[in-house]
Amino acid sequence: MPDFQTWASAHQHRFEDVLKTLLPQASLAPQRLHAAMRYSVLDGGKRVRPLLAFAAGELAGAEQQRVDIAAAAVELIHAYSLVHDDMPCMDDDVLRRGKPTCHVEYDEATALLVGDSLQSLAFQLLSEHVLSDNPAGQLQMVKLLAVASGSRGMAGGQAFDLASVGKELTLPELEFMHIHKTGALIRAAILLGAHCGNGLDAAQLAKLDHFGKCVGLAFQVVDDVLDAEADTATLGKTAGKDADNDKPTYVTLLGAAQAKKMAAELHAEAMESLSEFGARAQRLRELADFIVIRKY
Amino acid sequence: MPDFQTWASAHQHRFEDVLKTLLPQASLAPQRLHAAMRYSVLDGGKRVRPLLAFAAGELAGAEQQRVDIAAAAVELIHAYSLVHDDMPCMDDDVLRRGKPTCHVEYDEATALLVGDSLQSLAFQLLSEHVLSDNPAGQLQMVKLLAVASGSRGMAGGQAFDLASVGKELTLPELEFMHIHKTGALIRAAILLGAHCGNGLDAAQLAKLDHFGKCVGLAFQVVDDVLDAEADTATLGKTAGKDADNDKPTYVTLLGAAQAKKMAAELHAEAMESLSEFGARAQRLRELADFIVIRKY
Repeated sequence: MPDFQTWASAHQHRFEDVLKTLLPQASLAPQRLHAAMRYSVLDGGKRVRPLLAFAAGELAGAEQQRVDIAAAAVELIHAYSLVHDDMPCMDDDVLRRGKPTCHVEYDEATALLVGDSLQSLAFQLLSEHVLSDNPAGQLQMVKLLAVASGSRGMAGGQAFDLASVGKELTLPELEFMHIHKTGALIRAAILLGAHCGNGLDAAQLAKLDHFGKCVGLAFQVVDDVLDAEADTATLGKTAGKDADNDKPTYVTLLGAAQAKKMAAELHAEAMESLSEFGARAQRLRELADFIVIRKY
Repeated sequence: MPDFQTWASAHQHRFEDVLKTLLPQASLAPQRLHAAMRYSVLDGGKRVRPLLAFAAGELAGAEQQRVDIAAAAVELIHAYSLVHDDMPCMDDDVLRRGKPTCHVEYDEATALLVGDSLQSLAFQLLSEHVLSDNPAGQLQMVKLLAVASGSRGMAGGQAFDLASVGKELTLPELEFMHIHKTGALIRAAILLGAHCGNGLDAAQLAKLDHFGKCVGLAFQVVDDVLDAEADTATLGKTAGKDADNDKPTYVTLLGAAQAKKMAAELHAEAMESLSEFGARAQRLRELADFIVIRKY
């Protein structure tokens, strides 16, 4: 069995080709929109959500081709949210993954349409490929991603985030925001990967979902610590942005030391929820490690 | 059989209640986002796309409850596109359906998230309700709406539109733009309504699709004529906007008289494609009449 880095790199490389194939070619009209969609999705990011989908798919014995499509759908939703979040009316950020953000490289109207089109494409992918032997089950996968993306999921978390700028939040309020803003899509990635297989019952899916909840929160706590402590060159995006924007973070609320402790506790809880899966869950465990100990 | 106005009013009223039920309540967190979603969808518009879905559903013998969901999904996509199109980085419009546009009534960031969330909700609706006896067929309905909404459909048409400001377009180029920008969703409304029933074969669906293509183009031609000739109070949105923005329209390209002739020809072609359906297509014929002779 290859070590984690080898496994992750191989998937990341293969998945880049998957995305290149699934995104409309830039030669296809409207060319500028398609070029901007490719610019915003390709050649960037750690692909954490796809890796979680791949790991959950391995656990569930799913065909790789199916998980690739599900992972791509999740990644397109993630990429659309970054394009829209970076726009001037939201976070107004100029740098993302070490490159100019979409509205800087192209223009605001194009960035708006890129986000909109990436979201549509995500649902197109989930409906035009066979991802499950059971079409009714595949409809549930569409619903899962739609709920995770919408006003009761990721977009809703973003709205909470906007409303919280300049406010004091309690720890439960901050947690509520992040469970939606980043947690919903991370959980969806894991569940969609698992749904591409067959073997898991409802209780097992609930365990995976709890793993996703803990890992998603840990991911955000670590993000806050990195934003406070790392520099822009390492992050590939503007560091110290949250404090500058007077946004509540785990670091401003708890201090860096307590935030790190919280990440460690979430990590332990995530591991606990995988206990029944044995060796099948090794990649998920390694991903939990990766998310909590990463430096960028 | 009730006359067209009675039929349309009854559906419009019932459908308003359908939308009120399907949209998240404003008391549900995040409240401001949900209030803004309801503001942007409810109490406005002629509901042309839903009426087309209802008429196609009647033709196909579909259950009303199923067509309601399909029509709502299409209308949410339409509503999201209006919210985003009105934003300052796009058309920068302050008035829509006689009310301040979403970003004026709320703010730009909220308008962005409203559009994003309405799109997600559309796909949630198409996947969480049973709309077809055949789940694989329902997945095709999801795909149909996703393609019609995305970069090869509505959003792509919008990108063409942006790229055409200040340019001379040929008639085929203008047509290409509108077939995507407004036509794709009108065709999707008709096909989704029809797919909620069972009785139609591929050739019949193709006839309906051609009807939708003609009606969709006629709709845009009439829109251009109205924008050039009507006043703001009658339209409920800013009149003369296209000419002010130096946007190519059927009126600027053909003149008003030729544009009206073109609308009449498209109307006739639309009617021709319904010939085999007899009395079952009466509502679709009446809608074609309504679209071409409307005054606002």
